[in-house]
Amino acid sequence: MSILKIPTQPDTQAADSARAAATRAAIAETAERLFRTMGYQKTAVADIARELSMSPANVYRFFSSKAAINEAICARILGVYADVLWAIARGPQSPEDRLRGLFHTAYEQTKSLFFQEKRLHDMVDAAMAEHWGVIEGFIQQCETAIRHVLMDGQRAGRFATMPPDETARLIHATMIGFSHPTLVSQCADDDLAALANGMAEFVLRALRP
Amino acid sequence: MSILKIPTQPDTQAADSARAAATRAAIAETAERLFRTMGYQKTAVADIARELSMSPANVYRFFSSKAAINEAICARILGVYADVLWAIARGPQSPEDRLRGLFHTAYEQTKSLFFQEKRLHDMVDAAMAEHWGVIEGFIQQCETAIRHVLMDGQRAGRFATMPPDETARLIHATMIGFSHPTLVSQCADDDLAALANGMAEFVLRALRP
Repeated sequence: MSILKIPTQPDTQAADSARAAATRAAIAETAERLFRTMGYQKTAVADIARELSMSPANVYRFFSSKAAINEAICARILGVYADVLWAIARGPQSPEDRLRGLFHTAYEQTKSLFFQEKRLHDMVDAAMAEHWGVIEGFIQQCETAIRHVLMDGQRAGRFATMPPDETARLIHATMIGFSHPTLVSQCADDDLAALANGMAEFVLRALRP
Repeated sequence: MSILKIPTQPDTQAADSARAAATRAAIAETAERLFRTMGYQKTAVADIARELSMSPANVYRFFSSKAAINEAICARILGVYADVLWAIARGPQSPEDRLRGLFHTAYEQTKSLFFQEKRLHDMVDAAMAEHWGVIEGFIQQCETAIRHVLMDGQRAGRFATMPPDETARLIHATMIGFSHPTLVSQCADDDLAALANGMAEFVLRALRP
């Protein structure tokens, strides 16, 4: 029997791993629906398992904790967010307008993702409170998108030559006031839209050659 | 009897009001000691009253709630913080160096006030969560101190002429990443000191005429 199985093992492994990926995806999808309707704090792993007609123990075979499920969901959501920023950073506009676009979009995305959907905000809040790699990875993506525009502008002679990593980090830090969910939640809308636009122009002044 | 009382009433009122101020101060002082040792959340108005050998009802004659006591304490602490910023803003150095000083001090103050004293951080956190006027007043002080340096620099022709209120607000917003207690608590020390210094130079670039 083992002789017969040897040649098929790679296929079986592939099928197993495809099945595992499908189950992980189903768990994440169901969990996201429950987090968004019942709320992150109120949803238990047992609730997610029940919806999928499986045991909680089976859920734990795929995710070590509810926090790990939330991490996977947040990674997906923030991935979409990062894609939008990259589309702007790689777009056809001038470096100045792309930078303006990143500032404006950072604010708009925070506003829509986190405040039009209160439940989603709770999930991201939970992710931030636990210092997850997914948040750090997203911040890295933001800084790299800014760096991309910065280097394009430097190459075109429109921005001063400054150390790109450090400067991207500084520019990203100027965006905190209107893109950090915790801070945005404490402030009036109109003020923040004006802050985002004003800050983009202020940063462009700092980048003058 | 009313005829006899009329001439002495102003003195009596003054004495009453001095006594009331002394009692308020004693309540705030005792509360601050308890908040710093037991923690803000764990201290009840009854604990404060017991320390002062008075009834909780008497404490409530002077402060409407525990939150109101915390507000008075935070106002005092943030007042000291603002005084330090003003001493820099009005100091003898060049506008550039005063601005650098404000950035550096904003970070150092947040670090020492809020993190060498965890209990204090909880009190300020509570004040921030409840949107108190005292926090808004402090932010206003910070922005006005920045504005003062900005206008000195503009008058001396060292900074570009830009709308002072809006520009002070923008500069203050660039400081959030290393001076907002919630954010500072999520980040490594060394990174933030470098961010504060780097941001001061970046902002000075934006202010070039």
